[in-house]
Amino acid sequence: MLILMKAGASPEQIDAACQVVRDLGFMPHAIPGAVRTAIGITGNKGPLDATVFTRLDGVADAVPVSQPYKLVSREVSPEDTVIDLGPVKIGGGGVCVIAGPCSVETRDQVLSTADHVKQHGAHILRGGAFKPRTSPYEFQGLREEGLKILAEARDRTGMPVITEVKDTESLPMVCRYADVLQIGARNMQNFSLLERIGELGIPVMLKRGLSSTVKEWLMAAEYIVSRGNRKVILCERGIRTFETETRNTLDLGVIPLLREKTHLPIIIDPSHGTGYARGVTPMARAAIATGVDGVMVEVHPEPAKALSDGPQALTFPMFERLMRDLRGIAAVMGQRI
Amino acid sequence: MLILMKAGASPEQIDAACQVVRDLGFMPHAIPGAVRTAIGITGNKGPLDATVFTRLDGVADAVPVSQPYKLVSREVSPEDTVIDLGPVKIGGGGVCVIAGPCSVETRDQVLSTADHVKQHGAHILRGGAFKPRTSPYEFQGLREEGLKILAEARDRTGMPVITEVKDTESLPMVCRYADVLQIGARNMQNFSLLERIGELGIPVMLKRGLSSTVKEWLMAAEYIVSRGNRKVILCERGIRTFETETRNTLDLGVIPLLREKTHLPIIIDPSHGTGYARGVTPMARAAIATGVDGVMVEVHPEPAKALSDGPQALTFPMFERLMRDLRGIAAVMGQRI
Amino acid sequence: MLILMKAGASPEQIDAACQVVRDLGFMPHAIPGAVRTAIGITGNKGPLDATVFTRLDGVADAVPVSQPYKLVSREVSPEDTVIDLGPVKIGGGGVCVIAGPCSVETRDQVLSTADHVKQHGAHILRGGAFKPRTSPYEFQGLREEGLKILAEARDRTGMPVITEVKDTESLPMVCRYADVLQIGARNMQNFSLLERIGELGIPVMLKRGLSSTVKEWLMAAEYIVSRGNRKVILCERGIRTFETETRNTLDLGVIPLLREKTHLPIIIDPSHGTGYARGVTPMARAAIATGVDGVMVEVHPEPAKALSDGPQALTFPMFERLMRDLRGIAAVMGQRI
Amino acid sequence: MLILMKAGASPEQIDAACQVVRDLGFMPHAIPGAVRTAIGITGNKGPLDATVFTRLDGVADAVPVSQPYKLVSREVSPEDTVIDLGPVKIGGGGVCVIAGPCSVETRDQVLSTADHVKQHGAHILRGGAFKPRTSPYEFQGLREEGLKILAEARDRTGMPVITEVKDTESLPMVCRYADVLQIGARNMQNFSLLERIGELGIPVMLKRGLSSTVKEWLMAAEYIVSRGNRKVILCERGIRTFETETRNTLDLGVIPLLREKTHLPIIIDPSHGTGYARGVTPMARAAIATGVDGVMVEVHPEPAKALSDGPQALTFPMFERLMRDLRGIAAVMGQRI
Repeated sequence: MLILMKAGASPEQIDAACQVVRDLGFMPHAIPGAVRTAIGITGNKGPLDATVFTRLDGVADAVPVSQPYKLVSREVSPEDTVIDLGPVKIGGGGVCVIAGPCSVETRDQVLSTADHVKQHGAHILRGGAFKPRTSPYEFQGLREEGLKILAEARDRTGMPVITEVKDTESLPMVCRYADVLQIGARNMQNFSLLERIGELGIPVMLKRGLSSTVKEWLMAAEYIVSRGNRKVILCERGIRTFETETRNTLDLGVIPLLREKTHLPIIIDPSHGTGYARGVTPMARAAIATGVDGVMVEVHPEPAKALSDGPQALTFPMFERLMRDLRGIAAVMGQRI
Repeated sequence: MLILMKAGASPEQIDAACQVVRDLGFMPHAIPGAVRTAIGITGNKGPLDATVFTRLDGVADAVPVSQPYKLVSREVSPEDTVIDLGPVKIGGGGVCVIAGPCSVETRDQVLSTADHVKQHGAHILRGGAFKPRTSPYEFQGLREEGLKILAEARDRTGMPVITEVKDTESLPMVCRYADVLQIGARNMQNFSLLERIGELGIPVMLKRGLSSTVKEWLMAAEYIVSRGNRKVILCERGIRTFETETRNTLDLGVIPLLREKTHLPIIIDPSHGTGYARGVTPMARAAIATGVDGVMVEVHPEPAKALSDGPQALTFPMFERLMRDLRGIAAVMGQRI
Repeated sequence: MLILMKAGASPEQIDAACQVVRDLGFMPHAIPGAVRTAIGITGNKGPLDATVFTRLDGVADAVPVSQPYKLVSREVSPEDTVIDLGPVKIGGGGVCVIAGPCSVETRDQVLSTADHVKQHGAHILRGGAFKPRTSPYEFQGLREEGLKILAEARDRTGMPVITEVKDTESLPMVCRYADVLQIGARNMQNFSLLERIGELGIPVMLKRGLSSTVKEWLMAAEYIVSRGNRKVILCERGIRTFETETRNTLDLGVIPLLREKTHLPIIIDPSHGTGYARGVTPMARAAIATGVDGVMVEVHPEPAKALSDGPQALTFPMFERLMRDLRGIAAVMGQRI
Repeated sequence: MLILMKAGASPEQIDAACQVVRDLGFMPHAIPGAVRTAIGITGNKGPLDATVFTRLDGVADAVPVSQPYKLVSREVSPEDTVIDLGPVKIGGGGVCVIAGPCSVETRDQVLSTADHVKQHGAHILRGGAFKPRTSPYEFQGLREEGLKILAEARDRTGMPVITEVKDTESLPMVCRYADVLQIGARNMQNFSLLERIGELGIPVMLKRGLSSTVKEWLMAAEYIVSRGNRKVILCERGIRTFETETRNTLDLGVIPLLREKTHLPIIIDPSHGTGYARGVTPMARAAIATGVDGVMVEVHPEPAKALSDGPQALTFPMFERLMRDLRGIAAVMGQRI
């Protein structure tokens, strides 16, 4: 159930409606919008009687929500969620480019990459300081040392920084340095981590699990939003199929579907989605042409020497070409980049 | 092994080289190119001695082919294959739009759809007269009556016609009416059908199987080309995954890969690839942005009344919007449409 | 809709009921059972009025069939279908072992394998004379010469022969030699082939497609049965998944499901289902323990020299051990072998 | 690299060999065996020179390990790992039955179920107190209250208790009550959790991820073992495929493969593996027939009222039949149950 307040409803009227929800034993989630506030209700098992709410002062309507995910559903918000990171917004019409190395390896590597991608138009710097790796014997990231390098790159370039958080233990440390948290595909259903991040105010990019359905993905986002953190960005990064010549199968076909099902912004990661550098730019163009809110790509000064995922990293010249290509497609789509 | 003739090699020199291949017990496949002829060799189990060929008159080089597919491999032809259908070409730089109903249902339905898609810029008319259906109790197509309707639409609009052939029995009949044959996903490895079509000169569009790898798909194309019919077009139409909210998962990520592995033109079918009409236009834009040679979409005057696949059919106004969108993307890509 | 005749209904009463079905514009399929006859009705779009039939003489009941597949559904027959091959039956309580080489390669190879598997308890000889291969350059089978070798092995050992038919062209020839036809996984939805076989009286084993759902598989069987050939055996041979260390993922979990959904007998092929010889015997034991009607395994005198699928072929000693193991499991399951 | 000590090697000799490994900058892992000790070496990037070790006192041999997983590899141990839980062992020849409710719901539910499964031969009690659920609005488990109920059931029946741990925060609490930890499929690559459990001495059952390969699964086990906890049990619980009529596709075909690749014990979970109660017993029989070390099944006094996964829960009479069936199969396999 979603209570839609009238355009001019007062804070007191909103509070009163929330209190009625609480009195019924459920939980209200006030969702301020550009023109009016909606109040999501969770905790009920079956349908509620709308008239309990529609007769309250300041309430315009009360409508049922048909999906198992509630607060992330398009039904609760016709307006797209926009994540405001200061110098750049994610969602709401523009195209955002996130770029940087897979792993933070050295100060020089990060700073030179940051300078390059900034110069050619990237908006946000990516880089992993905590790397969940399939093997316990592989490079696991520079940890806090890596986070410090990212922060230095942010100070130098003005780009906000996105970096992966892999567990609740390191969450406070990562939050001290990051502008946006990234939850990796393998952690999409790490519900304890989702819940903890749901209690924070920091934006978070939630990658789709390797074999997760759209519904499961949106339910994972609901874990975060239902705790109060509405700054969630979805990131499609390829699913696992029988095809072995590409690392993953980038599922762009869910994008128009997601646009109807949720108000959250959507980013595409063509680097993991293809696994080979020459496939990244064509798929990034394709992503923009479907109408997503941005792309995230891996860039490395010397991909052959990368400590992780070298085969899918763009070189500096490849990144330049990517940006030229994306500007062309974004212009046709009527989007600024 | 591939024998590369010199640019000015004479027909006699080409014949002589082919004869040497035959004398060794293998099969030569002369492949004329814009500047020079190549000769593919099949039938050998292991590597051949290149010097047997390089010392022949008119031979420039003899190079090994590393893939299990030979004649469809990019290694044998740096030039893209172009299928010339008279008023339109598939491959070689332009974007081709194939449109029409899933099934031929009535004369009025086909003619009105053909008129509409022609008026708005489609190049080729599609329509199924033989429909392979999951259930024996479902509509199986109008058969020859349907083919006649397609032929009438071609005469009226000037658009070449593509239609599915589902078995060797109906192959001669379909060839009397069709400009391009379509082999459906379920028949991708119907090797007897592939072999028979390989003996004909008619162009053929080979859809990827529901769970076929890129390698299997190219091997299926090789079945046709190795019999002498080089007019093969590949069509990606979505693969089967665990995701159930879309009908299939359209695998655009294989396109840049295919561009490196084969010289055959590539068409994308976003109608089957998504299974829902609102997803078709965004994915068609995405396909053009990856750099494919064309798209094939289903259009119906009244999708709700379609005898097959109504949910994925575009209405007439949706098709107009599709064409506007595709022209924008194609222009940025430097492709005519 | 299914019309259930009374136990003592006369042929005239059955004919009269069928005629009523025809008069309504639908198709009747009389299905004789051990105690009484049922009449399946196909061709209707919506539900039928049962009273039209229940008031006829000799009719016990008329019940709706809820599945899209009708005649293969368990709803139309509580009794299991039993395929009678003379010396052996498939279905109805026993365990049937089908064994032999993947491909017929030489007379010696087949005869020695047939002698060995017969001596150790196999009931049916398998061997491919027409081999659908992924590559046009691979061994495609000995064709009629291979069929003749199989027939000689049958005459010598008394074992019925099962062999693959890959197209309608070779169907008449294969029928002259085979006791049971096999339709391979890639042909599961070759509907033209299914329809032609549906018009014959020969038993047919229908392998599940590489990525076919249970529903699609039963619909494919329905194609055959709806044409009049009820002698259909289902064969699970592994589905395609992301796992690459086994050739396929043998889906034994569908067996209890199939037992509820269909009356057709079920055979398991652990050779293709695993792709490695050491996995065949454990999975064959598992199959018997789930309660299937039989297993089909590949056996070769010298697997390392096999022209196809050598890695999954059992040696002669491995086959002996398999039979010992299966006898133990079958005994516990209360089944003769 | 694996150093194999001689049968009578002294502790001092073992220590000395370990020290040489450390001196080289790598990490030694002493693995005591029934007859002799092996020392796994990790941390090296490339191959090591065996002679550095073979010339040490007490060293029999030094052999390379070819897999990316080392300590869980069959190469390091021809002997199967046996987990000793006091009244029952997992691995080493017997068949272990783990049974109980999906979720701990009430004291009565757990005690009555524990009594029943104990009476009919179960060895270990399962029950979830922390339930990772797809939706934040679903029942999440009774937490410590649930653990106390499990402990009471253990005291009452003498059965060790296995229960899921879903995060590092609750790990100390769960360890106070559990005899065996369970890591759920969604946490298979929760590397931080794996590392923490690797530092404990408690046995742990690691479920395979929904779309994890065998290699990834063994690498996840390696995360635990490489930290020092060798008491790891693998649990196959079904993978995600396109088939929707079963909840998951139980991949029994990996069992013979796992037997060759690892020395860890293997448990099968046919409840999650099929998702429907009538499929559980046939698949449990199949699992025993492949030669696994045990099965884990869900049992509920009233499945229709279960708070989670009711459709796959066995009733009490179904569990009795399961045990009768499993005893029969185990006897044929030469295993005690």
